[in-house]
Amino acid sequence: MLTIEEKYIRRCFRLALKGVGKVSPNPLVGAVLVKDGKVIGEGYHKGSGKPHAEIEAISSAMESVKGSVLYCNLEPCCHSNKKTPPCVPVIIRGGISKVVISNIDPNPQVSGKGLLALEKAGIKTIKGIEEEKGRHLNRFFFTYMEKKRPYIIMKIAQTLNGMISEKQGISSRITGAESLKDVHRLRAECDAVLIGANTVNVDDPRLTVREAKGQNPHRIILDGNLNSNPQATIFNIKDKAHTFLLVSKKTGAEKIKKYQGQGLELKFLNGNEKDCLDLNDVIQELYRLQILSLLVEGGAQIFTQFLEKNLFDELIIYQSSGLFKNGVKAFNSATEKKLKLVSAEQFGNDVKMVYHPLL
Amino acid sequence: MLTIEEKYIRRCFRLALKGVGKVSPNPLVGAVLVKDGKVIGEGYHKGSGKPHAEIEAISSAMESVKGSVLYCNLEPCCHSNKKTPPCVPVIIRGGISKVVISNIDPNPQVSGKGLLALEKAGIKTIKGIEEEKGRHLNRFFFTYMEKKRPYIIMKIAQTLNGMISEKQGISSRITGAESLKDVHRLRAECDAVLIGANTVNVDDPRLTVREAKGQNPHRIILDGNLNSNPQATIFNIKDKAHTFLLVSKKTGAEKIKKYQGQGLELKFLNGNEKDCLDLNDVIQELYRLQILSLLVEGGAQIFTQFLEKNLFDELIIYQSSGLFKNGVKAFNSATEKKLKLVSAEQFGNDVKMVYHPLL
Repeated sequence: MLTIEEKYIRRCFRLALKGVGKVSPNPLVGAVLVKDGKVIGEGYHKGSGKPHAEIEAISSAMESVKGSVLYCNLEPCCHSNKKTPPCVPVIIRGGISKVVISNIDPNPQVSGKGLLALEKAGIKTIKGIEEEKGRHLNRFFFTYMEKKRPYIIMKIAQTLNGMISEKQGISSRITGAESLKDVHRLRAECDAVLIGANTVNVDDPRLTVREAKGQNPHRIILDGNLNSNPQATIFNIKDKAHTFLLVSKKTGAEKIKKYQGQGLELKFLNGNEKDCLDLNDVIQELYRLQILSLLVEGGAQIFTQFLEKNLFDELIIYQSSGLFKNGVKAFNSATEKKLKLVSAEQFGNDVKMVYHPLL
Repeated sequence: MLTIEEKYIRRCFRLALKGVGKVSPNPLVGAVLVKDGKVIGEGYHKGSGKPHAEIEAISSAMESVKGSVLYCNLEPCCHSNKKTPPCVPVIIRGGISKVVISNIDPNPQVSGKGLLALEKAGIKTIKGIEEEKGRHLNRFFFTYMEKKRPYIIMKIAQTLNGMISEKQGISSRITGAESLKDVHRLRAECDAVLIGANTVNVDDPRLTVREAKGQNPHRIILDGNLNSNPQATIFNIKDKAHTFLLVSKKTGAEKIKKYQGQGLELKFLNGNEKDCLDLNDVIQELYRLQILSLLVEGGAQIFTQFLEKNLFDELIIYQSSGLFKNGVKAFNSATEKKLKLVSAEQFGNDVKMVYHPLL
C-alpha cells in the first residue's frame, strides 16, 4: 500500500513527465495541491521560461489554497537570478500549510534553502518521498548538476554477431522499423546527438526526429581535423536545430571556410598532435552549452572512446536477428568491460537491451 | 472466452506437460474424462512402456465412464506393435460417447485410423481443437515423425560482442548462474546433447543435469577422426546416460581401442577425405537411435555447420553483459543468415534470446 505522500508524489511524477523533451535546461517538475483530502489544483513545468509547476498548480486551483498541502517532486526554488520569479514567496503568501517533496534541488542556489525558507515561514515540510524514483525521473538534470556533464546515452545498433556495419566505409541498415521509432523517441528526449566525422561521411544522417513526436536535438559533430564532408546533409539542412562542429584550434582558416551551413556553429577545442579532440574537453564544452542529455550515435571510434573513459550513463543496444559475414564491431579490440543489464525487450525482430556501467 | 472443448484440451496440455523429459520416444499426452459437465477422470502419459493417458484417465474414474466425453490432445492409438495395448478398443468397450482431440497422430500407423475406428463404433469425434498449441507441445515428436530427424535446438552462450570464448583452445565462462540453470533444464528436456571433439578437449564438460531436476540426456560426440582426448571426463564418468562417439568408418582400430569408458558406444559413419562426418549422416544416425530432441552445445565449427545446413528448429542465445577484447565467434565468417526473433528475456545479468530459422 502506498502512503498518501507516495500516492501524490507519484502523481507529481506523472504530471512532470508531460514536460519530457521540452523543459531543458530545467528539471521535470509536477505539483499537486490537496485540501481536505481532495485535489484542488495541479500543474507541471511546460518549458524553460514558462511558470514552474508549483505556480501552475496554485493558479489552477478553483478555491483558496489556504491550508492546503503542496506536493511537488522537486524542492521549490527561492532564487531570483533566472527567467521566472521564485516559488517560495508565492507558496508562503498563499497560506499553504505543508510542502511535501521528493528531491532536494541539486542546484547549489536552491539545495535546501527553499525548504528552509518555507520552514522559517512556519510551513511544515517533508522531503525524500520516492527519492530514488525522483532522481531517476530527473537523471539528466541531476547528472548535469552533480557531475558537471550531460547524462550520456550510447546507442548502438548491431547484428546478432556484434557488427555495426558490413564493411568499413559502408552504411548498413541493421535494425527494423520498431527500433528506428524508438531511436527517434530517444532523440526527441535528448538535448543533443553526437556523432563522429566518419559517421557523417558514411551514413550522411540528418539526426532529426521524424518517426516520433518532438523537437530535433542539437547535433554535435566531433571532427578534430575536419574530415567530414562539407557537402554532407547535416551541414546543409534547414531544420530547427543547431549543429555544433567541434574542431581543433589548429585547424586552418581555409579548411574552415567550407563549412557555412545555416544553423552551423564551429567550436574550437584543444587538439592533440594529430588534432584529435580530448573527450573530457568535448564534454566540458557540452556542459557550457547547457546540454543536459547527450545521445551518442557512433561510430566505432566514438563508442570505444566513451566506453574506455567510462563516460556514459546508459548503453542501449538494438540488436537485430541478422548475421553479417564480416564487418565492423561497435567497440575496437582494445576494449574489455563488464556492464550491468537493466532491461531486455523485444522490438519487432530486434532486442533492445539497456545497460548501466559497472563502476 | 474459451469454448468447452478448448478449456478441456488445455487441461490435457497441462497434464501432458507433467511428462516432459520422461516420455521419449513417445509424445506428451494428457486426457480428461467429462460426464454431465463434471471431470470424472484424468491422466497423462508418464513414460515409455507405461499406460497411455487415455487409459490413465479411464482407470482413474471413480464412476462408470459410460456416456462420458474423452478429451485428449493426441489421437488415441489403434495399433498393437508396441509396448502397450491400443487405446481405441478400451474406449469403445467403456461406452465413451464422444472423443475430442487436438492433433491427429503423425505416426503413420495411427494417423487418422484411430478416429476412424472410433467413428465406426458409433463414437462421435472432434479433431483440431487448439491444433497449433498441440503441435507446439509435441514439437519434438512431430518433427521426428514428419521430418525424420530430431527437433534441433542450438544453444550458444556469447558475450555482448558476440564471442563464445576469449581465445581458441581456452574455455571461457560466459554467462551467469541463472542461464546455467536454464541450460540444465533444457538438457533435462532433451533426449541428447551434441558437441564436437574440440569442445570435449577445451571445455571437458560432463553435459549432465545438475542445476535442474531431470534425467541426463544422451551425449553425442562428433569426432570423425578421433581427435578428442580419451581421458576426457565425458568418456569416463559413470552417469546414467549413454555417450555415443560418432567416428569415421576409416578410423584405425588402434586409435579406437583407447576409448573404453563405461556406457560409451562408438558409431561408425561415412567420412569425407579428411574423415569429417556429413551432418546429414549424423542426423540420420540420431533418427535411428530414436533421439527426438537434440541440444547442440558447440563449438563454433559445429554451430556453423548446423546453421549453414539450416539444420535447426530453435537457436537459443544466452548473451552476457561482458565484452571480450578478442575471441572466438559462434559462427565463422562464411555465414550470413537472417533469423526470426521469438522471445527475449532477462536471466540475471544475461539476456536469453530465442530464434527460429527464417525459411
